[in-house]
Amino acid sequence: MDTILFRPIGVIHSPFAEREGMPIQPSGAKGTVGKICLEPDLAEGLQDLDGFSHIILLYQFHASCGYNLQVKPFMDTVARGLFATRAPRRPNPIGLSVVRLTAVEGDVLHILDVDVLDQTPLLDIKPYVPRFDAPSDGVRCGWLEENAEKSEHIRSDDRFVKEDI
Amino acid sequence: MDTILFRPIGVIHSPFAEREGMPIQPSGAKGTVGKICLEPDLAEGLQDLDGFSHIILLYQFHASCGYNLQVKPFMDTVARGLFATRAPRRPNPIGLSVVRLTAVEGDVLHILDVDVLDQTPLLDIKPYVPRFDAPSDGVRCGWLEENAEKSEHIRSDDRFVKEDI
Repeated sequence: MDTILFRPIGVIHSPFAEREGMPIQPSGAKGTVGKICLEPDLAEGLQDLDGFSHIILLYQFHASCGYNLQVKPFMDTVARGLFATRAPRRPNPIGLSVVRLTAVEGDVLHILDVDVLDQTPLLDIKPYVPRFDAPSDGVRCGWLEENAEKSEHIRSDDRFVKEDI
Repeated sequence: MDTILFRPIGVIHSPFAEREGMPIQPSGAKGTVGKICLEPDLAEGLQDLDGFSHIILLYQFHASCGYNLQVKPFMDTVARGLFATRAPRRPNPIGLSVVRLTAVEGDVLHILDVDVLDQTPLLDIKPYVPRFDAPSDGVRCGWLEENAEKSEHIRSDDRFVKEDI
């Protein structure tokens, strides 16, 4: 199929310079301060965003390379199908995090609960809207039903740093 | 900044062949049947996904071209900053929908609540996990606080079809 070209619209800054020892979800990064520097010529598009408490960030897992279709996630001890995990090494390495927005100043967004590497290239910002994004009826979470809570204390190790896993 | 290359991992099929008259969110597409045909060589990555009731689809708004930083959304009568909306014409036209997963058969996923155009190129599938994706404390939704419910009955018109808006 055809390739699709995207261009970063800004950079996410976080305290995490290394892939090891990081929180693996915003749920494990409560209170972690970060900021987004948007391309200045896009700042006009941030109008009205400050009315939203949470925003969805789509970004490139820029330190990831290649993928395996079976992965052993940080939160489990057995291999799972890649698309049933949030592992960063994916055919299209796009990350998704819902973070708290605390302020918008020109082309800079101040955010909390940041779980991404410093210097992560940002692809898109969307307002988080529970009615769109948070179904509540009949939600089942498969292998994460009992494991998702581990995201609050588990930190990353080197398993997605090496390319051969 | 550098460009980033992605490649579709499959195709989303839906009943919507035209951009006008479509639901604008899964909340307005309850029960709408669709399916995903994944690239066959990626099917192994679907293992364990059937334990999840809902999945997050990231896809290309393939019928969108260009963008404006101020847009009048379907659900409002005044212009809003692009990043405070879910409009399809964006610097990186990536769409996000949380849909219901009803069955996985080989490389085909059967889904419900589909709000995308037929033949939409799929970029990624992630399991929907409320603990990761659905913050509940202190959520504010800005201009969508009173307008999001309109997503359940409003249908798209031609405003994002034309390039000059």
